[in-house]
Amino acid sequence: MSDSRPRAVCLVSGGMDSAVALAEASAKGFACIALSFDYGQRHRRELAAAERVARALGAIDHKVVVIDLRAVGGSSLTADIAVPKDRSHAAIGVGVPATYVPARNTIFLSIALGLAEVAGAQDVFIGVNALDYSGYPDCRPEFLRAFEALARVATVAGAERHEGFRIHAPLLEMSKADIVRRGRALDVDFALTHTCYDPVTRGAGTVACGRCDACQLRLKGFAEAGERDPVPYVVH
Amino acid sequence: MSDSRPRAVCLVSGGMDSAVALAEASAKGFACIALSFDYGQRHRRELAAAERVARALGAIDHKVVVIDLRAVGGSSLTADIAVPKDRSHAAIGVGVPATYVPARNTIFLSIALGLAEVAGAQDVFIGVNALDYSGYPDCRPEFLRAFEALARVATVAGAERHEGFRIHAPLLEMSKADIVRRGRALDVDFALTHTCYDPVTRGAGTVACGRCDACQLRLKGFAEAGERDPVPYVVH
Repeated sequence: MSDSRPRAVCLVSGGMDSAVALAEASAKGFACIALSFDYGQRHRRELAAAERVARALGAIDHKVVVIDLRAVGGSSLTADIAVPKDRSHAAIGVGVPATYVPARNTIFLSIALGLAEVAGAQDVFIGVNALDYSGYPDCRPEFLRAFEALARVATVAGAERHEGFRIHAPLLEMSKADIVRRGRALDVDFALTHTCYDPVTRGAGTVACGRCDACQLRLKGFAEAGERDPVPYVVH
Repeated sequence: MSDSRPRAVCLVSGGMDSAVALAEASAKGFACIALSFDYGQRHRRELAAAERVARALGAIDHKVVVIDLRAVGGSSLTADIAVPKDRSHAAIGVGVPATYVPARNTIFLSIALGLAEVAGAQDVFIGVNALDYSGYPDCRPEFLRAFEALARVATVAGAERHEGFRIHAPLLEMSKADIVRRGRALDVDFALTHTCYDPVTRGAGTVACGRCDACQLRLKGFAEAGERDPVPYVVH
């Protein structure tokens, strides 16, 4: 049985945002190729979550590209810098976070573009949202449009066959609470996702710290949506 | 003793083109950070050549980013596809070569951009040239300009401090013979460079095959420049 759906490459980190973006792509009728990165981050359990999310949401394939950005440095997600804890919600999202990986989305979208070309896909989905683009320059709408313009001239498909690549960011205008609600509507099982920057060992597994910026934003989103977060926390 | 020169990130593959581009950057007064990629290619000896070239040409640092593009596939340089041999010069450079790695330069420049941001550099040098852009879409001038536009909105430096990134491609209009001549003028030791896609074991080391597209183009460049290529070949 061949799959006549158009293909899309979907960036899947293992977190809740990209899970909802993947669910949006599936709901729009795309056959989704999930793409994750093993980029020397300290929390490789994200990759296990990405695999679970891709399978649960019916992706036709899941590719993991190994890229070691430690040689580039400059971020607490890849280098040995402390993860900020217990910051106020007012402080989170002001300025560029310590967890900023320079040019990360540019790098990830470039690899997605290469995979899209190989797979015959013209659509790429990324879960960036309003919260991200308050702090990360490479999450803003103007960045996404500039990347589409680049993609048109960077590839054989674009250059020879005049095909456009579309970068979809279906969560771009959404708050975390919006994302929780949209995920519920699309039957995303948030229990499969992993968000914490600094998980704590408990028994054979780990639980989310509840205190890093990522945990705080996630918990606030669930609270505002009037939902209970199904993942376990040390404190919250 | 501090180095007051502006910094530049220079993509150095180990081949002759990027060696000459690095020499150009140094000649222009930049303190150069060489950047190479270990991307699952079959010819890792390129990396040893890149290290020799970076050291010989006075780069202040040499970073190697590991990126495994085999999950992306689609090229004889990363996947298990035969390297073309003994093609006519007329056939080489027509259409997109089998050695095309989808979106490769987009990926490499994205990582260079991240490193430039961390290092406080606003200039990136890449050794693409006229021969490349007959076949590879991501070597053309319009691609390089689109990448500069992307870089302006993709980074903290560009977005907050309105700084431009410049992508320098000093060999863009040059033939291989021009590159040989320019390298000689800049005292580049071509014996340090490695070009062959399919080197042959001889004794403890390897020699260039002389028959793959890359060897043929290199040898033609030296012949047209009236120079002798200092690297050893099986046949030519």
